[in-house]
Amino acid sequence: MKALNVNIDRLTADLNELARFSGESVPPPAVTRVLYTEPDLQARAYFKQLCTDAGLVIREDAIGNTFARWIGSQPELPAVGTGSHTDAIPHSGMYDGTVGVLGGLEAIRALQAARFSPTRSIELLMFTSEEPTRFGIGCVGSRAMSGMLVPKKLADLHDADGLRLDDVRQAAGFVGSLADVRLLKDYYSAFVELHIEQGPILEREKLPIGIVTAIAAPASMTVELTGEGGHAGAVLMPGRKDALCAAAEIILAVEAAAKDTGSPDAVATTGVCRVHPGAINSVPSKVTLMIDIRDVNLAPRDQSVQAVRAAIDEVSKRRGVSAVVEMLNSDPPAAMAPVVVNAAEGACGKLGLPFKKMVSRAYHDSLFMAQVCPTGMIFIPCRGGVSHRPDEYSSPEEIRRGVEVLALTLAELSCHS
Amino acid sequence: MKALNVNIDRLTADLNELARFSGESVPPPAVTRVLYTEPDLQARAYFKQLCTDAGLVIREDAIGNTFARWIGSQPELPAVGTGSHTDAIPHSGMYDGTVGVLGGLEAIRALQAARFSPTRSIELLMFTSEEPTRFGIGCVGSRAMSGMLVPKKLADLHDADGLRLDDVRQAAGFVGSLADVRLLKDYYSAFVELHIEQGPILEREKLPIGIVTAIAAPASMTVELTGEGGHAGAVLMPGRKDALCAAAEIILAVEAAAKDTGSPDAVATTGVCRVHPGAINSVPSKVTLMIDIRDVNLAPRDQSVQAVRAAIDEVSKRRGVSAVVEMLNSDPPAAMAPVVVNAAEGACGKLGLPFKKMVSRAYHDSLFMAQVCPTGMIFIPCRGGVSHRPDEYSSPEEIRRGVEVLALTLAELSCHS
Repeated sequence: MKALNVNIDRLTADLNELARFSGESVPPPAVTRVLYTEPDLQARAYFKQLCTDAGLVIREDAIGNTFARWIGSQPELPAVGTGSHTDAIPHSGMYDGTVGVLGGLEAIRALQAARFSPTRSIELLMFTSEEPTRFGIGCVGSRAMSGMLVPKKLADLHDADGLRLDDVRQAAGFVGSLADVRLLKDYYSAFVELHIEQGPILEREKLPIGIVTAIAAPASMTVELTGEGGHAGAVLMPGRKDALCAAAEIILAVEAAAKDTGSPDAVATTGVCRVHPGAINSVPSKVTLMIDIRDVNLAPRDQSVQAVRAAIDEVSKRRGVSAVVEMLNSDPPAAMAPVVVNAAEGACGKLGLPFKKMVSRAYHDSLFMAQVCPTGMIFIPCRGGVSHRPDEYSSPEEIRRGVEVLALTLAELSCHS
Repeated sequence: MKALNVNIDRLTADLNELARFSGESVPPPAVTRVLYTEPDLQARAYFKQLCTDAGLVIREDAIGNTFARWIGSQPELPAVGTGSHTDAIPHSGMYDGTVGVLGGLEAIRALQAARFSPTRSIELLMFTSEEPTRFGIGCVGSRAMSGMLVPKKLADLHDADGLRLDDVRQAAGFVGSLADVRLLKDYYSAFVELHIEQGPILEREKLPIGIVTAIAAPASMTVELTGEGGHAGAVLMPGRKDALCAAAEIILAVEAAAKDTGSPDAVATTGVCRVHPGAINSVPSKVTLMIDIRDVNLAPRDQSVQAVRAAIDEVSKRRGVSAVVEMLNSDPPAAMAPVVVNAAEGACGKLGLPFKKMVSRAYHDSLFMAQVCPTGMIFIPCRGGVSHRPDEYSSPEEIRRGVEVLALTLAELSCHS
């Protein structure tokens, strides 16, 4: 293998081009790219063209998980996977996920240019819907690939307009059998994902690379509150069963639940609050909340969940408002595999890059890939730890280093039979 | 004049037909009819056809206020007005406003059938956008007719999509000059509006008719809260500036403000809460609240407004979230005119119907018509006091009595020169 040269100008141009596919009328770096919308489909087409140009062999599964394979010298062996997602929540940034997808492609192109010849195939993945924007549940693609989301439940996921995933994925052109989404046993020998940190630690400690040892345990739920509506001028205060006032108490209880655990890593967020009928002169009769609770340890995470559920019960009873709670997911934390962690450490050593072993508090496809094969993650810094906002940013230099570490990690994982 | 015979079957059929023009996919009695949308335009066409069939002369002004005139024997005299609105907030009922419009038409048809000949012309109005759904301000049509909303401000009203009223009204086919919407001095000698009570008092006291003596004083505002967004997994609790948590405290302060006045008639409602970006895994960076505060007396109403403003200041400062408050309106209460109250009392006397003089806590076009001419309102009971909900209901018998009182009131007001 010759010296590794990552073409960061080409990768930067690819990232900028990808950012143009966005549902918002605002220009990049703000991005909105929701599953099976036009920008999502445009991003998929762009990604596949780049992979084809790089000589990779493409397949798509029944929900649009996209696999681009660099065939190894022993193609019958389980492959080494890498990749991430390109979907983006409304009005967010252009680096979350995309750095792992296009950076993964650049790592492959750099290895090709260096005349590296993999023994195992290296397969680049673009996962469908890592973000929960449309169907209320994150990592739809990798979750289904891991078998933790069975075809029946996958088909029946529905969006805010009541549309079923099984219908919209077919309308978007993905028509295969949902039963084929789950990966075969030993499909991959390892998986590694490059991602921006989405936290401030690497920047603060002036470190170019984080090697993830575990992914935090997320739990999420929807709460449907139903009170009594009526005219805002005519329904007097004592008779009210205002669903939004009940929701307000619950939103504050969610915030308090995370703080009350005493765990510095506990976070709890009400990110969605939809009000029905949503008119200035009408008492809210229904409110839908969506709540996300995480911790790096399961015990304080579940303590927060229990505190929120208790608050929902107490508030709804006291106010005469009915509450229906649906747990969307309550996933266990995932440990990263030593074989991948060691390969990434070795890559940093060869490149002379300092690194930090760290925990990921954000939610990644690697959480589910860890159910399928030995899995690891490589983090790069992002400015101010900011993510899911238009000002999310990692510099070309930071991205270049991450791609170099990814490339050498893939080389190490793919060179043995 | 022969005996008055209100054709309640015809009126019931008209109301049922009107309820079919709705933006919701749910069937009547649920109705959604928002200004200048297709259902609104369909309702207008239906109303004009009924008025033409009754021999009334129709004109529309530049924002779609619709006037249907039964020409009197002295057409040069100021006319007597009656009417209400047909727009409806999302997922509301089929009687609010419509009873005053189609009931007004039925009153005219009954007077025509009774061979009554008015001296002054009687003019039936369908006001544009009594509900604040689209432009955040109620009584757009009557407010502009009264001169309390000047053409420049009227033109610049914008909806949630940023569309200007002046553009959407022209797109809907209303192309005249906005300067001509204001009514000429002495256009009407009196105005009277038939309406469902939207409160429980008449039903509870088993009275068929309420005669309104004053309309409560509404104030409304929008609050734009801007905090800091970010990834719900990665931004730790101590660094957060969550706009929705700030909003939750304000929503509860709005509720408390009305209760704290000690006034039994004080009501305060947060009817709209829009969250940006509105994703389950994103800390809310912006929230828009719309707040409606009312009382039958100005002092406790303004006390509630001040308490809410103080809470917004305190919460936003403590949480490091910026707050921009815009007062949408802060209208004074309106007294009803003795000439109209007396005419309605006389009508009840002739019909042998018991009645109650009462205050309206809800907001009506009559609040603004009272700025233009002597104005009054006639209330009929509605089941459970419920309004702005699909189960809003007044019985045909209750409606018939209201129309009879309205007809005799119009006869009394129009028979003198």
